[in-house]
Amino acid sequence: MGTKVSPLAPARFPDLPVIGGVRFASAAAGVRYKGRTDVMLAVIDDAVVAGAFTRSSTRSAPVRDCQDKLEYAEGGQAAFLINSGNSNAFTGRLGEEAVDGICNAVAHALQMPASRVFTSSTGVIGEPLPWQRIADAVPALRDALDPHGIEAAARAIMTTDTFPKGAGAEIELPEGRVRIAGIAKGSGMIAPDMATMLVYVFTDARIGHEELQAVTAAACNRTFNRITVDSDTSTSDTLLVAATGASGVDASGQAAFAQALEAVFHNLALQVVRDGEGAQKLLEIQVTGAMNEAEAHKIGMAIANSPLVKTAVAGEDANWGRIVMAVGKSGAHADRDRLSIRFGDIVVARDGFRAPDYSEEDASAYMKRQELIIGVDLGIGSGAATVWTCDLTHGYIDINADYRS
Amino acid sequence: MGTKVSPLAPARFPDLPVIGGVRFASAAAGVRYKGRTDVMLAVIDDAVVAGAFTRSSTRSAPVRDCQDKLEYAEGGQAAFLINSGNSNAFTGRLGEEAVDGICNAVAHALQMPASRVFTSSTGVIGEPLPWQRIADAVPALRDALDPHGIEAAARAIMTTDTFPKGAGAEIELPEGRVRIAGIAKGSGMIAPDMATMLVYVFTDARIGHEELQAVTAAACNRTFNRITVDSDTSTSDTLLVAATGASGVDASGQAAFAQALEAVFHNLALQVVRDGEGAQKLLEIQVTGAMNEAEAHKIGMAIANSPLVKTAVAGEDANWGRIVMAVGKSGAHADRDRLSIRFGDIVVARDGFRAPDYSEEDASAYMKRQELIIGVDLGIGSGAATVWTCDLTHGYIDINADYRS
Repeated sequence: MGTKVSPLAPARFPDLPVIGGVRFASAAAGVRYKGRTDVMLAVIDDAVVAGAFTRSSTRSAPVRDCQDKLEYAEGGQAAFLINSGNSNAFTGRLGEEAVDGICNAVAHALQMPASRVFTSSTGVIGEPLPWQRIADAVPALRDALDPHGIEAAARAIMTTDTFPKGAGAEIELPEGRVRIAGIAKGSGMIAPDMATMLVYVFTDARIGHEELQAVTAAACNRTFNRITVDSDTSTSDTLLVAATGASGVDASGQAAFAQALEAVFHNLALQVVRDGEGAQKLLEIQVTGAMNEAEAHKIGMAIANSPLVKTAVAGEDANWGRIVMAVGKSGAHADRDRLSIRFGDIVVARDGFRAPDYSEEDASAYMKRQELIIGVDLGIGSGAATVWTCDLTHGYIDINADYRS
Repeated sequence: MGTKVSPLAPARFPDLPVIGGVRFASAAAGVRYKGRTDVMLAVIDDAVVAGAFTRSSTRSAPVRDCQDKLEYAEGGQAAFLINSGNSNAFTGRLGEEAVDGICNAVAHALQMPASRVFTSSTGVIGEPLPWQRIADAVPALRDALDPHGIEAAARAIMTTDTFPKGAGAEIELPEGRVRIAGIAKGSGMIAPDMATMLVYVFTDARIGHEELQAVTAAACNRTFNRITVDSDTSTSDTLLVAATGASGVDASGQAAFAQALEAVFHNLALQVVRDGEGAQKLLEIQVTGAMNEAEAHKIGMAIANSPLVKTAVAGEDANWGRIVMAVGKSGAHADRDRLSIRFGDIVVARDGFRAPDYSEEDASAYMKRQELIIGVDLGIGSGAATVWTCDLTHGYIDINADYRS
């Protein structure tokens, strides 16, 4: 159950560029299950760190700790320690003790300040994290650190994911070549305001903290914040970006760097949707002609989160009436008589009415594809946004009706 | 598929009081399928009419027509004509022509103004309504009008409903006895701001238009606007209330009347949830201690609409971490360290932490019930609201992945 690889998975894990100054290790610490790789350590020799996090009011102790530490981020060695099996969320004072225990263990093993250790935890909510097991695994993790360990690291942070997620880029800047490599995990509790995810991206570019934070936030808004699997926002969403400067190449003010970083985010975000729990189809929703970008985003998310739209897609049913419904419930401005809808290139409805040449047969044939585009034009402004989601299938129910056992 | 009666259904259709001055008829007009009862006519001899409607920006032509007519509502004879099979939504100018065609046919057959004919349509969105078939059925409907026809009327408006929904009340006011009888249909596209429904309630009380509208709106806010099946809001939601005054009893300013009307709404609203598509369990979510009532409602709906909460309930999994998640994503104020959660009387978490005496075994046993209560106390204010929903099961996917075929 839930172990078959998603039909939307990429053929294989990509060859990622090695990022100078970054080493990885993973291990089985027995956080929840014995013999399953469940902790990952990344050590960055000299890092500028930026991040983005869930906006949940019940966010976890590790998220709060990362947020605090990023406020006073400086350079120097940094470490990311991630565990699966237990999210250390809603664990009160014990949650903070667990974060401190793990950070101190890493700081001690690596001879670095605990204020530069960032932790993430994913898994069950509300159960005290057996952090001592993780602390005990740190010395062995340190001894296993390897610049080539990123794929194993991607595997270590999987929960209900059916494939490990990685993406990379290499670009030429005026001063030379820089590299970006990132990993992510999904795959349920995925929703707006940081899809429920853990994402770690590394680059050897040289860039200041403020600028790295700004390009990270902007790219996150157009990628991870525009995907949804099930509308549920996690208490643990974390994106961390570390720039080592090992390339010696200055990326400050370079649009090409910001674009490459966004492309890596985009690739990882789509992989998360491709591994959405039970996903059989990938759905891209292109909203145009809305009052503004925020309203376009709102309409896109209303469509992407609609159980009726998602089940229609699962059933390969060209039920465009449900898209009209979702636009109507979104709360965004819409004029029924200016609304147009298309499936791929097939115009279904125009100006608030079924297109005269609409063929249900063509639309039904289109719905059989594995990757679908739904276009919605509001006809009232120039706001546009694209969001991505997957279908809602029996697989989602199978996975989530009995996740904990 | 979808034809087995919900396990949450009442044992039988209730005995409803006969409302003086109201007669019903139903027929098979072949709107979408041949030989299926799909139109219902209610004629009210002398009616004060109030209503509440979907707030969807893509709401249907019949909804817009009802809203227009209620703005100038006076007394006199009134008629409700409802069809299933086609919602006459997103049908542009043809939609308005269809409404006019039906209203004129009823007005002609009953010798009354078309401005007093209210229509509702439910079913597929975006296909022109073959309204002539309905108009053709009107003379036979008129000839079949019967004061005892309410149960058949409730059956005529069913779509994916698995049982007809009715509720009634009789109360003594200072001037004498008044009666209330109502019918409703669900059962998908059920969400906040008028659950996706058609509801018709009749009373023989004497009451003015403004007061009837006010008590209807207030009661609707605490009942139909607090249920959700799938978070999807229909383009056709309609609630109409007609008071005939046939009892001769004045209900003006009578709190007992407003309470009885709300009780009928509440009963019908819960029947809609009990017949939620694929529903196996009824879930009551009691939110207390929120900043205010609106925030309590928001938190309740975030929990009730969470696919992860609903699948956990379907799987009888006491996964209270998902409730913490839903509170966190709601956008309402919450303090993790003041949050308490209970399943029925079992306190699961208190002050942001698992209750010391929490027994997973007891909670798991509780989850096996068919009707569940989840209590969430925010501990930060005195706002309270209760909402109702059902679980998310394979049945929902079965019904909605291929509704149109």
